[in-house]
Amino acid sequence: MRILVIGAAGMLGQKLVGLLAREGALGEMPISDLLLVDVVPIRAVGPCPFEVRALVADAARPGVARDLLSGRPEVIFDLAAVVSGEAEADFDKGYRVNLDGTRGLFDAVRAVGDGYRPRVVFSSSIAVFGPPFADVIGDEQATTPATSYGTQKAIVELLLSDYTRRELLDGVGIRLPTICVRPGEPNQAASGFFSNIIREPLNGAPAVLPVSPQVRHWFASPRAAVHFLVHAATLDSELLGHRRCLTMPGVSATVAMQIEALRRVAGDAAVSLIRSEPDSAIARIVAGWPRAFDARRARTLGFRAEQDFDQIIRVHIEDELGGHLRRSR
Amino acid sequence: MRILVIGAAGMLGQKLVGLLAREGALGEMPISDLLLVDVVPIRAVGPCPFEVRALVADAARPGVARDLLSGRPEVIFDLAAVVSGEAEADFDKGYRVNLDGTRGLFDAVRAVGDGYRPRVVFSSSIAVFGPPFADVIGDEQATTPATSYGTQKAIVELLLSDYTRRELLDGVGIRLPTICVRPGEPNQAASGFFSNIIREPLNGAPAVLPVSPQVRHWFASPRAAVHFLVHAATLDSELLGHRRCLTMPGVSATVAMQIEALRRVAGDAAVSLIRSEPDSAIARIVAGWPRAFDARRARTLGFRAEQDFDQIIRVHIEDELGGHLRRSR
Repeated sequence: MRILVIGAAGMLGQKLVGLLAREGALGEMPISDLLLVDVVPIRAVGPCPFEVRALVADAARPGVARDLLSGRPEVIFDLAAVVSGEAEADFDKGYRVNLDGTRGLFDAVRAVGDGYRPRVVFSSSIAVFGPPFADVIGDEQATTPATSYGTQKAIVELLLSDYTRRELLDGVGIRLPTICVRPGEPNQAASGFFSNIIREPLNGAPAVLPVSPQVRHWFASPRAAVHFLVHAATLDSELLGHRRCLTMPGVSATVAMQIEALRRVAGDAAVSLIRSEPDSAIARIVAGWPRAFDARRARTLGFRAEQDFDQIIRVHIEDELGGHLRRSR
Repeated sequence: MRILVIGAAGMLGQKLVGLLAREGALGEMPISDLLLVDVVPIRAVGPCPFEVRALVADAARPGVARDLLSGRPEVIFDLAAVVSGEAEADFDKGYRVNLDGTRGLFDAVRAVGDGYRPRVVFSSSIAVFGPPFADVIGDEQATTPATSYGTQKAIVELLLSDYTRRELLDGVGIRLPTICVRPGEPNQAASGFFSNIIREPLNGAPAVLPVSPQVRHWFASPRAAVHFLVHAATLDSELLGHRRCLTMPGVSATVAMQIEALRRVAGDAAVSLIRSEPDSAIARIVAGWPRAFDARRARTLGFRAEQDFDQIIRVHIEDELGGHLRRSR
């Protein structure tokens, strides 16, 4: 099986590639070669039982997608995107990459013709939903994005479904929860604190909480997200009918629940490293985010996230900290 | 007030222009000039108290939209579209006109800059919804189109909301019911029979019914549709918040209810002109169409349709038949 990963240098791309390299297969299907693309250099993949090529290229530029398809990959993971803040700050770039770039990929698939109909796994986002919304958002909820990023994702979802219905490709779109605990350095994204308040204390470092502990949001671990991608790539897509886009399962937790989970896993000393510093700008942004979903369709189709936030923290410790806390308590 | 109507030669476009010419105003605002555009020649507008210019041009072609905006119309009615059957038969044309053409118009508005922010009334469609759906579809229902036409409309709805949120224009999208009774000749559209079985018998001509009398669908008269457009153009759009697209009210009726209304209005002789001739292809298409909506948001905002199908027939008699039946009974 030949696989193409667009956006392979991102956090999820790297973790997906790591999993494919370790397993040598996608589900039951042995991988013969893997083509990785990103606009920035991609970290070398360790030893693995198949050929890996890595390209630095902008798949959103005309002609690039056509070249990427020359080997006719059977599975395409489309993870590339201008992130939310940048798509809001730079209107043209967001639409060019997130909408036109992805549509260009779909049209390049169509242009191959000759019965070529790869599985395309598209990483969408819960940003397709905007306020006001119900406390628990069901699978039939209208997409009413409150950002250009969410708009672009919602539009690509519609294209993915229509191109699939017309048998031009075989698409599955998955709306990822907020990924938590994000590894790496603290960042300035409005959502960064959800990860910072767990990751930093686990490393013995202080973290700032800019919102009320009552804030509730929707999470899954990076590990769960990678498994969503693999499951979406191997699923019998006939089960989806014409509705090719699915809200992924996750854990609905308040910040207070996050903190109590941290206390159970890492003790009071870790929790004492969190300092409350209310930031009304961040609080306002986060107030427009969904709090919980009933992701029934995805669960029925076998997508699985963590059961609670304790488990999300344990996954982080296993996958990022070698399975043990770095500080004794 | 300067007004631009794109798609002015279509049935709704003509009726809208006729109303504006008769009233000389849009709501309370006197009209100073009206620019009409279509890809086909536009019927001359009768005497009216403002300047009318008519252009034959394809607003979906690059550069054309910019020229149309040179007079900075305060209100733009965007009624132009490749219809459902053609968008399904010609993939590229449907996307080029219905998606790229409309997006090009929005971008041309944006390019004017200088605080130019016209009201843009976009005619969307209940084709943004696809099966399986509830018996009654609410305002929060996900758009899951079953056609490329519906997909293109749903995408433009998302663009309209995002461009409005970013203050690049002031958009209102209205999802029109199936227009009934459509004037003119019987056509081959799958939905044509809903009008044929009323219009033709009222003219003393036979009509074919290709589906079961139990088929239920969602209707409004051409007159109601034109009033939706005018109301959308004059509405205080701040009331809409970020959700700029509304399902219009209508009448949910079965074919049997249509026929009984025809009997009440025009007698048994008219009904006897309807011949049942089941067509499984049409029955299959129509089975994928919505049956009823709870258009609560639009009603709250003052949009009004007919109360029942009898009224829809009477509107047809008033507006198309000079107020009286052509045949004595």
